[in-house]
Amino acid sequence: MPKKILIIGAVALGPKAACRVKRLDPTAQVTMIDKGDIVSYGGCGIPYFISGDVSDIKELRTTSFKTVRDESFFRQAKDVTVLTNTLALAIDRKAKLVRVRDLASGQEQDLAYDNLVLATGATPRRLGLPGQDLPGVFSVADLHDAEAIREIISQGRVSRAVVVGSGFIGLEVAEALRDMWGLEVAVVEVMDQVLPANLSPVLARMAEEHLRENGLELHFSEKVLGFEGQDRVERVVTDKRVIEAEMVVVAAGVVPNTALAGQAGLALSARGGVLVDEHMRSSDPDIFAGGDCVEVANLITGQPFFLPLGSMANRQGRVIGSNLAGGSAKFPGAVGSFAVKTFERTMAGAGLTPAQAAKAGFNALSTLVIQLDRAHFFPGKELMTLELTVDRDTRRILGIQGLGPMGDALVGRIGAVAGIMSRGATVGDLSNLEYPYSPPFSQAMDIVNTLGNVADNMLMGMNQGISPGEFEKLFAGDQNQTCFFLDCREPDNASPFLTRHPGVWHNIPQGSLRERLAEVPRDKTVVLVCNTGSRSYEAQVTLNQAGIKDVLNLHGGMAALKQTGIKL
Amino acid sequence: MPKKILIIGAVALGPKAACRVKRLDPTAQVTMIDKGDIVSYGGCGIPYFISGDVSDIKELRTTSFKTVRDESFFRQAKDVTVLTNTLALAIDRKAKLVRVRDLASGQEQDLAYDNLVLATGATPRRLGLPGQDLPGVFSVADLHDAEAIREIISQGRVSRAVVVGSGFIGLEVAEALRDMWGLEVAVVEVMDQVLPANLSPVLARMAEEHLRENGLELHFSEKVLGFEGQDRVERVVTDKRVIEAEMVVVAAGVVPNTALAGQAGLALSARGGVLVDEHMRSSDPDIFAGGDCVEVANLITGQPFFLPLGSMANRQGRVIGSNLAGGSAKFPGAVGSFAVKTFERTMAGAGLTPAQAAKAGFNALSTLVIQLDRAHFFPGKELMTLELTVDRDTRRILGIQGLGPMGDALVGRIGAVAGIMSRGATVGDLSNLEYPYSPPFSQAMDIVNTLGNVADNMLMGMNQGISPGEFEKLFAGDQNQTCFFLDCREPDNASPFLTRHPGVWHNIPQGSLRERLAEVPRDKTVVLVCNTGSRSYEAQVTLNQAGIKDVLNLHGGMAALKQTGIKL
Repeated sequence: MPKKILIIGAVALGPKAACRVKRLDPTAQVTMIDKGDIVSYGGCGIPYFISGDVSDIKELRTTSFKTVRDESFFRQAKDVTVLTNTLALAIDRKAKLVRVRDLASGQEQDLAYDNLVLATGATPRRLGLPGQDLPGVFSVADLHDAEAIREIISQGRVSRAVVVGSGFIGLEVAEALRDMWGLEVAVVEVMDQVLPANLSPVLARMAEEHLRENGLELHFSEKVLGFEGQDRVERVVTDKRVIEAEMVVVAAGVVPNTALAGQAGLALSARGGVLVDEHMRSSDPDIFAGGDCVEVANLITGQPFFLPLGSMANRQGRVIGSNLAGGSAKFPGAVGSFAVKTFERTMAGAGLTPAQAAKAGFNALSTLVIQLDRAHFFPGKELMTLELTVDRDTRRILGIQGLGPMGDALVGRIGAVAGIMSRGATVGDLSNLEYPYSPPFSQAMDIVNTLGNVADNMLMGMNQGISPGEFEKLFAGDQNQTCFFLDCREPDNASPFLTRHPGVWHNIPQGSLRERLAEVPRDKTVVLVCNTGSRSYEAQVTLNQAGIKDVLNLHGGMAALKQTGIKL
Repeated sequence: MPKKILIIGAVALGPKAACRVKRLDPTAQVTMIDKGDIVSYGGCGIPYFISGDVSDIKELRTTSFKTVRDESFFRQAKDVTVLTNTLALAIDRKAKLVRVRDLASGQEQDLAYDNLVLATGATPRRLGLPGQDLPGVFSVADLHDAEAIREIISQGRVSRAVVVGSGFIGLEVAEALRDMWGLEVAVVEVMDQVLPANLSPVLARMAEEHLRENGLELHFSEKVLGFEGQDRVERVVTDKRVIEAEMVVVAAGVVPNTALAGQAGLALSARGGVLVDEHMRSSDPDIFAGGDCVEVANLITGQPFFLPLGSMANRQGRVIGSNLAGGSAKFPGAVGSFAVKTFERTMAGAGLTPAQAAKAGFNALSTLVIQLDRAHFFPGKELMTLELTVDRDTRRILGIQGLGPMGDALVGRIGAVAGIMSRGATVGDLSNLEYPYSPPFSQAMDIVNTLGNVADNMLMGMNQGISPGEFEKLFAGDQNQTCFFLDCREPDNASPFLTRHPGVWHNIPQGSLRERLAEVPRDKTVVLVCNTGSRSYEAQVTLNQAGIKDVLNLHGGMAALKQTGIKL
């Protein structure tokens, strides 16, 4: 008897699992159902369709060789049956039946399975606000939303838009509306920074500075109360202001679609994701689940977490496909890597942020490094910023996030650290990580190695760094002159600040510090500044060795202040 | 008593070790000696100085904040004594003395040490050929060579140049001479391909195609017999031809400078490198060695190997500096990652090539994947080529090499795989490697994941691939029509080849193959072709499932043929 495989959900994980099992077991009878009318598309491409980078929406539905992946493609090329507009109503685990309804005809039937795959995905979070159903208020759930958004923009009916939420989708959509269509765009975020789940406050501030420079209006710690308008949305009301807008995109995160799984009695996490083992099996061994509807093991915390990314769906889909054919493929979990491009900056990371590490109970230490992404003598070099979090007790790498203008260069470093991090790497492994060296692409001591070295120095107590925000507070609040701000760059770099802050700003180039130690007071906190934090570290070592121990150095230096928009 | 540390060699590793130990132990008395007059420079930047990318040679001697790292810099900023023009003559390990000669005055003296560091580097291999001392015949050993080369080019005295050797330096110099100065450049290589120590024949052929397209003349399997000319070099004589040239750059590899170590009785490897333990200690516990003069553990083979890279010198220098201060820092070994940019292509890799893996005794399996480096719908996408070698017995990753037009994107993938490879990663780890996913930078199933998946499929016997070279032989040698060449792309892609090779070339699009199985002969070897190798794999699975087992698919597809310059 051929095995009957039923897959609920046909966007990303479903098709991958279906095709994989058919390659391994051609006798399997595979049926995919989906409540929508379009299947197997790249939802991650929606912001690029909205922007116009992707001209035809079909490109999000085609293979790289331009075949549209519709029902007949799956039938003909893959021997997989696809039922669209078909809603799964209930799972009868005992009888191994799924009750489904044809949304066109309203007819219901039971589909039998030997193995069931839940690929039900996630849905944009609805805020339950007044006016949320007004025309012009969108979410980004599927290709129909994408088409509707682009249609009203391209008709020229929108000049002002509000994006609710500043996660990946929120930022990508905001950029698309601003950069490609020239709209006035306001982003409203209930948390106090962009990408609150992904970046520390200092990196977020750098990202925000760039977003504002590119014309986005950003409102943080601000709650949307509702949407108003006559026949369509005309304004957004928050707890702080009213913003005029002809269009609103709500991108306030997603929630896993697990009502069906819950009703069937499958084990769910506290946050509502289907719990799966490393073979992507749910608590019912005949039912697999993967993609945006599950939680997987976080390889740093050991706890399950929610990681709704197309990449996860694809990789988990392959694992499920192999296991449907009798294999024992594993998806061991993830560290949660990400990348997001906005205007001329990319933000990327993996693992925990400093705050997440502390919250997870680690004795965490973080460090910020700003360094050129290639040899300092190579044309086209740019500064890259990376923040590393490690466990003081075990020296293990817990997380890395960063920001830079050369997206591929940043993503490459994050990818390299994500890889070793998932295998328990420590600070020393980072110091010796073999990011390929050649002047056009990296430094002999690459920024990832420097990160490891700085963390090592901090763990030894040799490097006492402060963040740009901490520096700003010290500088602003030092009415009693308890600090001695010492610029250890060359005089031509330091002189504008000496002029602007006479008696407060001081300058001794790091190369002369050893001879001019007498000029440094021993009754104040010495706060050291240079361009990126490397000379201030050297200066700190020199001062410490001379017995001056109350010394702080600004991690990332003046470059970090500039990127965060802190003006002295 | 302060510890006396003597460092022989002051280019890369020496300065790093010196500065590190002084930060940890300010009481240490550190002296660096060097036989040259310029210290602490970025030798890797020489090709970019020759090209003019780096305008002033000082840039190779400065810190990123523009301070020249000369003797007074080390004295003042680092409290390190530097003696230039000082040649080490002999080490007396018993008395802990090094005999040195001042090359200016000829005076000799003994320098005492508690710890000695050998940072003697490597020297370009001299070929011992007639005419090698003629003016106009250069090697690339130091900044003086760099200045001399650029001087004669910028004077316009050279229109034809020959580069001997096609390793990293040879290719970088050849590009500099051709691309920036417009010279006619011939590269003569004794082996049968470019980068013979780093690329498989198929990747090398792709690189060569690009180099030739950019106007380089390449001669392989050709031995230089000598250099001829009246007062300066006028031609290069090889075993196959005479090449007119006003300038020759010999870049035939480097040999470690270990005569001093050998005379002192330190343990050397068979190839003449100083042998060190994981703390970078030589066989004499008071003597450390690192950089281009040592061999380190290859983390794939477990055997020592020679890896003369500036990145190694820097990282090993830090380890030595820590240990000089009483620490126990480790340099565990390396997998040997590399990157090299030539014209609009970058080649990069880590670990063993297929041939090296076989030679090292592994039961090796290799696979070639060509895939877009970002989402297929994202503007600016480019094809990247990667070749993976794994161990059939343990599924362990042994090596990865590749080529692509977006250098940072390629180097990022290699860095990520190098990191996990050094930690014993297997095929499954590659399938789940978390290279950050976002359409502008990667695919949901990124090329590194695909590589893992293809290797997995090959290990299962599901994917029987052939290389472009093997395909070329089959196609050229098939007079008896024992093969059935089946193009499984859409008809518009296949039709030019159907016209050109009637009766030989056949076309069934992969999506229709299941219905048109009857058209496929069962008495021939079916050779499948598509654009990049993914549809031909699917077609192979379909044919295998239908009982047609004698099937081969071209890895990398038509893209691989095109890149290797194979015309059908």
